[in-house]
Amino acid sequence: MNRYERLACELRSRIEEGYYQAGERLPSVRDLVEAHRVSISTVQHAYQLLESGGLIEARPRSGHFVRPRRERPPPPSIGRAMQRPVEVSQWDQVREGTCLLPNSKTFYLGRGMPDIDAPTLRPLLRALSRHARRQSLVTLNYDSLQGQRSLREQIARLALGAESHLHPDDLVITTGCHEAISIAMRAVGEPGAIIAVDSPSFYGSLQAIRSYGMKVMEIPTDPSRGISLDALELALEQWPIRAIQVTPSCNNPLGYGMPLEHRRALYALAQRFDVMIIEDDVYGDLEYAFPRQPTIKSLDTDGRVLLCGSFSKALAPGLRIGWIAPGRHFERAMHMKYVGTGSTATHAQLALADFIEEGHYDPHLRRMRAQYLRNRDAMLDAVAAHFPASTYATRPQGGFLLWLECAPELDSIALNQRLTEQKVRIAPGPMFSAVGKHRNCLRINYATFDPQVEAAVARVGAEVARMLEEAGQAPLAQLAEDAGAAEAAR
Amino acid sequence: MNRYERLACELRSRIEEGYYQAGERLPSVRDLVEAHRVSISTVQHAYQLLESGGLIEARPRSGHFVRPRRERPPPPSIGRAMQRPVEVSQWDQVREGTCLLPNSKTFYLGRGMPDIDAPTLRPLLRALSRHARRQSLVTLNYDSLQGQRSLREQIARLALGAESHLHPDDLVITTGCHEAISIAMRAVGEPGAIIAVDSPSFYGSLQAIRSYGMKVMEIPTDPSRGISLDALELALEQWPIRAIQVTPSCNNPLGYGMPLEHRRALYALAQRFDVMIIEDDVYGDLEYAFPRQPTIKSLDTDGRVLLCGSFSKALAPGLRIGWIAPGRHFERAMHMKYVGTGSTATHAQLALADFIEEGHYDPHLRRMRAQYLRNRDAMLDAVAAHFPASTYATRPQGGFLLWLECAPELDSIALNQRLTEQKVRIAPGPMFSAVGKHRNCLRINYATFDPQVEAAVARVGAEVARMLEEAGQAPLAQLAEDAGAAEAAR
Ligand SMILES: Cc1ncc(COP(=O)(O)O)c(C=O)c1O
Ligand SMILES: Cc1ncc(COP(=O)(O)O)c(C=O)c1O
Repeated sequence: MNRYERLACELRSRIEEGYYQAGERLPSVRDLVEAHRVSISTVQHAYQLLESGGLIEARPRSGHFVRPRRERPPPPSIGRAMQRPVEVSQWDQVREGTCLLPNSKTFYLGRGMPDIDAPTLRPLLRALSRHARRQSLVTLNYDSLQGQRSLREQIARLALGAESHLHPDDLVITTGCHEAISIAMRAVGEPGAIIAVDSPSFYGSLQAIRSYGMKVMEIPTDPSRGISLDALELALEQWPIRAIQVTPSCNNPLGYGMPLEHRRALYALAQRFDVMIIEDDVYGDLEYAFPRQPTIKSLDTDGRVLLCGSFSKALAPGLRIGWIAPGRHFERAMHMKYVGTGSTATHAQLALADFIEEGHYDPHLRRMRAQYLRNRDAMLDAVAAHFPASTYATRPQGGFLLWLECAPELDSIALNQRLTEQKVRIAPGPMFSAVGKHRNCLRINYATFDPQVEAAVARVGAEVARMLEEAGQAPLAQLAEDAGAAEAAR
Repeated sequence: MNRYERLACELRSRIEEGYYQAGERLPSVRDLVEAHRVSISTVQHAYQLLESGGLIEARPRSGHFVRPRRERPPPPSIGRAMQRPVEVSQWDQVREGTCLLPNSKTFYLGRGMPDIDAPTLRPLLRALSRHARRQSLVTLNYDSLQGQRSLREQIARLALGAESHLHPDDLVITTGCHEAISIAMRAVGEPGAIIAVDSPSFYGSLQAIRSYGMKVMEIPTDPSRGISLDALELALEQWPIRAIQVTPSCNNPLGYGMPLEHRRALYALAQRFDVMIIEDDVYGDLEYAFPRQPTIKSLDTDGRVLLCGSFSKALAPGLRIGWIAPGRHFERAMHMKYVGTGSTATHAQLALADFIEEGHYDPHLRRMRAQYLRNRDAMLDAVAAHFPASTYATRPQGGFLLWLECAPELDSIALNQRLTEQKVRIAPGPMFSAVGKHRNCLRINYATFDPQVEAAVARVGAEVARMLEEAGQAPLAQLAEDAGAAEAAR
């Protein structure tokens, strides 16, 4: 955190603690300069930050004031119903969300894209260009199956930040985290095997389970701590579960960071029942808190954790460079990697290795973490302002994804259809379930936040309100049916 | 073919027909200029071509002479033994061949790498560099699942050269042909399904079949025409085969081009038994004859052909850009694509689309076809010069891979081990079989041919001779065992 961010943070706490009340005037720039011994521009930057977050407003010639604002929506609570192992459906929803044309005029509020417009990413483009101009034969040729050693070294070095002690030879470079997950699934189980997942869960993992003929056991998940260990233990007792797949850091879609104690207990449970853990750490470096939490992999003493990651969220998804540290399943993972795609694209690996080695990764991360944290609060305020009061919202501890739980009558798939005309799309809740649960939920992206985004959020909120109103006006029979469906859908 | 290539071709035929005998002097440059009404440099180029192919030699101040040379090794004949469906083994061999470090000092005579050093490839590097410098957000962002429309348009246009009428929307961009094959396998069959393959066959397809728990039925294959239709028909009658996987153009490893009639008959057989065809066309554009043969896909009236291709052999493998035209299994293929890698790398797609659209693809192909044809003949001569007389060699009709069948006593895996010390590696025959057949065979690469390559070939040939001599000196019992193993291995 730099100086003005620190100052903004301090002022925000003061406001949140009620030291400065809504409508009250904040200290003048000059006062703050003297009190904190910082420059005028630091204070101005701090105020701009709070302003863009919707926390304060500047009134011409009178100074800065705490904005009167609505309460932020409360966080959702843990789901209840627990099921038997099931087959995964919902491909239609996922397909629709991933076959979008990136050039169209629609506002994709639901996608998992980071902001790739930061100046701190430019050295990456320069590295790509430089390697192309170098005309070295290496750039165009097949890489070795395991991937560039120089890149694996950098990934191993970065992993120390999450307390993972990986050797470069423990890693296999993959075509994005998608391939890492796909490899992990096949490495741990054959068709028919049961994988326990947090719920809601990343649709990519669910569809991988579907594709390989496995079954999924959705475990209720606390939106602020992660997968319920009690429910998981019960499931492990009752079913021959092969592996547990979780995203403990900056969970997609819930945004929580699983506490270290929880990670330890999860690992102990996996040991007790001798099951594998697939740990998806694709957002891990985007935890707002620094230093970030240790991965579950860092606790792994017997190679049962398959750690999956990529540069898609922290840097740029179009490069399609990820990795897997498959633990005891290394040899199987190499076979899957070979069969799935052969070696990984060489050029992007070379450029990424340079980018990190030259020290550009950390400054970029610092910038993005601060931006995403700012945007999170702005987005929560926007939801408070534009969504019905019945809405719940998560409190993401990292990344750039917000999960909203609307009143049980809401059908987010129908919502998405109605939004098409308004040229906005959200990610409907059922995408994140094997069997279409979370129907009254949706995921939105705050990687960027500006008036355009806020306008899109406002359109979504208004449509949700309209649909809930319509549902309220439905005949009684219909209402009962809806409620039943909503109950079933939790 | 340009003027000097035409002239060289004419002179080569004359030599091969015996019009000019070994040791005889060829017409002077001036004579040819007058007789053919071409420029001096055309004649000089033609002579250089023949010289680099080892067919003639220039003697200072006396002119050009036909080189006395040994007969080229005769082509191998079709294998015999036919088996039941089996599970695929041989991963160890493949792993060894694909985990090589590209920077080491060893001479990888066995790899499937094209020559990527041609000046006609430079516009591709320029396009990569340009797109990186443009700093457009598109370069770094997720692409849509199906791949860049501009690239699919170019691939559809190029496919016309093989008489395939594809719409850009019939195509899905993949991470190399590996992913295309992997998708095709899973689209046509579930674990336990039987896939019929030509034999020897590309090890990547075999390992994909293994990875997805399917079985393989190896069908004897004519080294000059392809999969035996009689044997295939018998197999289709006896076993519930799901799909036939073939590489009809520039077959890897045999190099044949399947005649059009053979393609028609194969397609008719697939229709009669209602099985799918997986057509691997990854080398298709490298057929020496122009225009190239129509794909089987071009004959497809009911969507049963899944066409797989990539730019790995015609352009550059490190980009990892391929495609699949999955016919009636389009929707399943999209699901597999999503699960396997998500969308494909954006940057390389943009650069490739530019490269082709700007007209750089055809000149590059022309150049490479001529080079590979030249090198084929030079390589055949090198094998004639350096391998024991008991060696058979294919007559590739395209691509850059030569298949050698040595005397039955040779063990190509042991050969490869012995070559390690001499810093040469070949691709041993068992890699190309599900169960380790073709043990006395090996594959070598002639994408480049120069004195270094010839020296490596000489080392391999000498080692083969040494091993056969040793085998000849073995006690009788051992000999009988070897012969039995060699028989079983055919
Ligand atoms: C939790 C999670 N895992 C994996 C992925 C896939 O990442 P990649 O784009 O690197 O394949 C995503 C991206 O959407 C994700 O959100
Ligand atoms: C016949 C055949 N098919 C497919 C492939 C794989 O191609 P790619 O490098 O595009 O994945 C190869 C490359 O070795 C091959 O020889």
